Order: sequence, then structure tokens, then C-alpha cells
Amino acid sequence: MPFIKNAWYVACWADDVKPNEMFARQLLGEQVVFYRNAAGEVVALQDRCPHRFIPLHRGKLVDDKIECAYHGLQFDCTGKCVKNPHGDGKIPAAARVKRYPLVEKHRMIWIWMGEEPATEDTIPDYSVMDNTEGFQTSFGYLEIPANYLLMGENLLDLSHITYLHDGYLGSPEQVGADQVVEEVGNEIHCKRWMPNVSIPGIFDLLYRQDGKPVDMWTNMRWLPPSCFLLDTGAHEVGGQREDYGWYYGIHILTPETEKTTHYHFAA
Amino acid sequence: MPFIKNAWYVACWADDVKPNEMFARQLLGEQVVFYRNAAGEVVALQDRCPHRFIPLHRGKLVDDKIECAYHGLQFDCTGKCVKNPHGDGKIPAAARVKRYPLVEKHRMIWIWMGEEPATEDTIPDYSVMDNTEGFQTSFGYLEIPANYLLMGENLLDLSHITYLHDGYLGSPEQVGADQVVEEVGNEIHCKRWMPNVSIPGIFDLLYRQDGKPVDMWTNMRWLPPSCFLLDTGAHEVGGQREDYGWYYGIHILTPETEKTTHYHFAA
Amino acid sequence: MPFIKNAWYVACWADDVKPNEMFARQLLGEQVVFYRNAAGEVVALQDRCPHRFIPLHRGKLVDDKIECAYHGLQFDCTGKCVKNPHGDGKIPAAARVKRYPLVEKHRMIWIWMGEEPATEDTIPDYSVMDNTEGFQTSFGYLEIPANYLLMGENLLDLSHITYLHDGYLGSPEQVGADQVVEEVGNEIHCKRWMPNVSIPGIFDLLYRQDGKPVDMWTNMRWLPPSCFLLDTGAHEVGGQREDYGWYYGIHILTPETEKTTHYHFAA
Repeated sequence: MPFIKNAWYVACWADDVKPNEMFARQLLGEQVVFYRNAAGEVVALQDRCPHRFIPLHRGKLVDDKIECAYHGLQFDCTGKCVKNPHGDGKIPAAARVKRYPLVEKHRMIWIWMGEEPATEDTIPDYSVMDNTEGFQTSFGYLEIPANYLLMGENLLDLSHITYLHDGYLGSPEQVGADQVVEEVGNEIHCKRWMPNVSIPGIFDLLYRQDGKPVDMWTNMRWLPPSCFLLDTGAHEVGGQREDYGWYYGIHILTPETEKTTHYHFAA
Repeated sequence: MPFIKNAWYVACWADDVKPNEMFARQLLGEQVVFYRNAAGEVVALQDRCPHRFIPLHRGKLVDDKIECAYHGLQFDCTGKCVKNPHGDGKIPAAARVKRYPLVEKHRMIWIWMGEEPATEDTIPDYSVMDNTEGFQTSFGYLEIPANYLLMGENLLDLSHITYLHDGYLGSPEQVGADQVVEEVGNEIHCKRWMPNVSIPGIFDLLYRQDGKPVDMWTNMRWLPPSCFLLDTGAHEVGGQREDYGWYYGIHILTPETEKTTHYHFAA
Repeated sequence: MPFIKNAWYVACWADDVKPNEMFARQLLGEQVVFYRNAAGEVVALQDRCPHRFIPLHRGKLVDDKIECAYHGLQFDCTGKCVKNPHGDGKIPAAARVKRYPLVEKHRMIWIWMGEEPATEDTIPDYSVMDNTEGFQTSFGYLEIPANYLLMGENLLDLSHITYLHDGYLGSPEQVGADQVVEEVGNEIHCKRWMPNVSIPGIFDLLYRQDGKPVDMWTNMRWLPPSCFLLDTGAHEVGGQREDYGWYYGIHILTPETEKTTHYHFAA
């Protein structure tokens, strides 16, 4: 099954790419190396020297260039070889690596790996991540040993919470809930409204810590192919969302290979 | 090489399937889950939920049914889905898993994985296992990283005992023994008679513990494809079997995959 | 990619094959067992009993023969089965294993695995290994998880030493050196002359231990397919080789499989 290449994917959290260090990761089957240039901008290059195929991240950063660990060829931020220290120093035109379009936004690094032109306005809107005053955010990462679609299916159909997460994210009365599925532009929305249910442990901790029944909702948006945004919470039975026992769940799946997935999540 | 499916195989020892627990094992390339119902009868079902392909043994037993860990579908002893807790609760006709014919006999669980009808009277006769008064039995299990036929060949041709098991099951003088091979109905019998040989260590322990020469025999029966029954022992040179220095060896091979084998043995 | 079979390969160091022990190794995809006969000569046989395919090195040495661990068949130094201890003792003509032409020379075991006749005079000349008075030799071995050609390429193009071995085998000024490549008979010679360069650590230890600049050279000879001989050293700027700050590097690559390599090296 080929990857959907002409789309924005989250390569990593913005904080994963530190100054003066290279960060390497396989994405959609391709090896990519990331680093920040002197201006602090993140660069993403193919992680393979075109000379003898050594991973470039094994080398070192020299100014804003990567110097290959094997024979010292240097590549600049555009992926072009700009120094051959040997012999007459000539550089073949083919001595370059792919540079990937990249945007740092919503505290994440977004990469475009397809052949079609990348347009920034199609980056999924995770502006909820930018509100660092009103919200507290915790970040997580897992490598999943499965195709990303299997996890996407998990995120979209939250009827599993009663069984797989019973007690902390789910509770028995939720199974009666209707699931409303809507197609909204390019997105799929799956909404569950669960009135008057036992409150699961995590929501109880976030909310009133009294164990009393609540109205709950899980509204999941799928921004294909790989991004999910969940609005979920609990309030007093018959109450209002403004009771504040709710949060946004950021769930982002990036294929590493056909059988492994980078899973970035935050709440 | 395809498996011989229309045959009885030993899935496990009867004691492996405990009350209120599921026991999972791959047999002939298929994942199977076992449990005992309230009546104590062992049930064998395909170990894969037809909904999202989760192994059913990851779930839990609810009365005599398995509840899937992922979305809570329940399957009864016949493999039929009998509860869908979500939405309108409808259950598609295809929501069922395979149930395997199964017999608990001779302290083992026998399973039939083929398409032809299973008939209990073709279960190999291991009634020697039922004699719990006259004999003491010890049970063993190994997972062999090889096709079961390689091990079957080992069991059928016991001329190797002098070399591979020298000193404890074999002794040098045995190599002179004739091997008599007979076809008896559907079985193959391989008999070795080894008069006046040094006694190997294990037989000496079982018998007189004096290290003196004995007459020995190994009579192996192959009940194809996967069952072996050995009658082996030693007695005084020129003596009688009733000297009691002998035992039955139960050797049963069940393919797990084409390259791995469940080996159940007892003596 | 098939192996080049009609060539001499180094199977192991001569000292690897000890008296009264078998030594087993996979070479060019074939399993081979080595041992010394009573005369001290090394024998190389196919490491697989023709009867039930057991590795012969699991057995034991009986006089100058290998006795198989499984059923006790014995094979002599020519690979012929010379004893069947069972039944009437008949030995089928096909009961033999391949014997490989083998020469112990230059403190190494050379093996010929091809179908064409082996001629000793094509064994690469490593007589530098025989000079045990004038030189001190240290031996090494690594198993490389890559095809041998990738390592051969490393050895032939030593322009990498400034980068991959900076400080101990290489130094920055070396990158200006010309590389002279010559075809000499069946060999390829790659010579680098590096006048007036900082002395790398290992050469400084071998030489004057004063850290002063030197003239350096690396003259690598490739004796295809798998043998390399390096003449490398450093002397006073404008000085003479006889200053003695130099050594021979023996680098020999033997394919184990298409993706793994035995790397024998000495200096």
C-alpha cells in the first residue's frame, strides 16, 4: 500500500529539534535529518549522502552545513553539496540531497514529502496548541508497531473507551450513546453525546473529584490522512460546557514505514 | 508444504486449560483460544474477533462467553456473536468465529482443524495415559524450532540413541540391533531388540541400579501424522518383561507453524 | 549477486584451528568444518551430514575422522563416509561430503570453493606475515554486517581517514593529497603521498612521540576479489622511509553471506 505523499505530516514536536544537534527520523519510508540553522529555522534533508550512502546525521554540523562523517562532503540548507575537500575539489551536479518543504507551526514540525507543490494553508489547524496561557499542555510520543490506519480507526471510533479504557476514560453507561458521523468539507466528524453516565477516573480528576454522574461528550475530527482533534469533556447532568471539565486531545499519526507509526499526542 | 488438516491433533495437556482462564495457542498456522465453560467442558474458538481482528484471548470471560477487549462484542461457545452493546445492538450474521471440534481424552485436548467431519473414534488410543493407579506419569512440553516431520523422523528411527543419548538412554552395543519395520493398518511400527547390552543410565535407575548388562527393546508405533507411542524397557539377560524395568513413552507432535512444533511428551 | 567462487579466500587465522577441536564457519554461503588431522594438516569439509543434514561439527573427532552426533556415521579427511555402525554396515556411494582444497600459508588458512581446479601459486603473497623476527604482528577479526564489497571500497579509498579516523589515523592536511590509481597486472594500487602534515596519534605513538609534522604515505594494493595489503607510514619531513615509522596493514575480507563478511586484519 503506497503512502499518501502529497499531504502535510507532523515529523516531530518542535522541541525535538534542538540547536546544534541533528535529529533523524524515518518518515513514509524515507530517512530524514533535521537541524536548526543559525537563524533557528528547521531544515529537513534526505538523510543519505549521495556519495557512499552514509546517513548524514552521523556527521557533524559545520556552520549551517552538514559534513558527512565518511569523506567530509558538505551539504548546505538546500541539500546542495558545497564542499568537496579532496583532489581538485570539483563537485558533480548530482551531488545533492532532497530538501523537504517544512513549516514550524502549532509547536510541531510539519513536513511535505510529495512531488506536488506544498501550500502552507493546507496545514491542519491546531491553533488550540498556541493558546499557552489559557491551557496547560502535556506532550507525548509513542512508536506504534502497526500501520497508521489501524490507529486512525481506533481514534475515529471511540465506542471502544468503555471496554479498552474502562474506569479511567470510559464507563459502562456510555455504550448506549449514539454516534453521529458527518462529512464536513474534507473532514470526518464523529460525535458521541453521553448524558447521565458514571464519570471515568481521569475526567473526575480534571473536574469535581466527587464521582457523581455527568453528561459527557467526545467530538472527534479527522483531518485526513493523519491528523485528529478531539474535543471531549464532562459537565454536571443538564449543565454547561463552561463548567471547564474538558480538554482538547491532539492525536497525530505519521507513517514511519508501512508497519510502524509515529504517534504524537498532546492534551 | 500444506498441513494435514483432517486429523486429530493434541492442542495441549488437559490441565493447561484452567477454569476461568483463557489459553491461547497457534496450531497448524491458526490462532486458537481455549476455555472451560461452566460445565467444565473445553471450548476451542478462532482467536480473532471478526470485527477488528483483535485476539479474543485479550478479552475476558463473561459467563460462558468471551467479551472482546476492544469494543465488547460477546461470543458464545459456538463462536456466534450474541451481544453487540453499541447503537441498536444489531448483530450481522457474519459476526461469528470458527468453533473447532474438540475432545478431552487421555488427559489431553484433541482438536480437529479440517473441513471433513470429525469422528471421535479416530482419536489415537493413548489409554495407557488413563491408568493412573498402576503407573506414575510425568508430563513435558517443548517448543521445537523446526517442522514436525524432522522430529517425527527422530522418534521413528531410534538407532540414534547410542550416539545422541549415549550413557543415559543408549549404549554402544545397541548399534548391532536389527530394526524391524512393519506397516500395521494405518500405523508404522519400528521395533529394535537389543540383547545383552550395557544398561544406559536412566534404565539402570528405573531397574536394578547395578549397572549389569540387560536385554533391551524399543518398540515405537507411529500413528500418523503426529502421534507416537513407545514401549521400551530392559530386563535381565534372557529374562521376562514382567521384571518391570520398562515404560511407555508418549511423544506427540503438533505443528504450530511450518517451522515450529509443539512437542508434548510423557512417560 | 553470486559469489566469485574460483578464488582463494582466507577462511580463518591458522591459529583458529586447534588440535583435537573442530572449527565451523560459513563461507560464501556454505557451511564448512575445519580440523587438524594427526599430521597437523588442516582439513576442510562440508559441515552437513549427507544422511540427516546435521552439522558435522556437532559430532566428535575419532582418530582423523568426524563422527556425526546423530547416528554415528564417520567421515574421513577426504569427505568419504567410511563407517556405518548400523545394520549390515553398508555405505551408499553418495554418502560423502565435499572436501575443499585448502592451504595453510602466511599464518592463514586459504580455502578454494570453486569448481575450477585450485592452483596454489595464485594465493596472494602475504609473505610479510612470515617475517616474525623483524616485525611484531597483532591479529584482529570482526564480523561485518554488510556485503564485503562495501568494506573493500572503504579500504581502497583511504581519503576517508581524515574524517572517519581523524586524530588517530588521519589529520586535516591529508585531504590535499593526490590519489594515484594504477592497474598492475591483476591488482589495483591506490597510492597517496601526503607531505608535511600533522601526525595522527597512532603514527606518533609508533614513531617519535613528539607531535611534529611528518611526510606520510598510504599505498594500498587490492588483490581481487578479497585481499588488501597496505604499506603506510610517516617519516621526518623530507626524510627517508628507513626512519621506521611505518607498518604493513593486512586487510582480508571473506564473504560469509551476501550481507555479512568475515574481516581479518593484522598489522
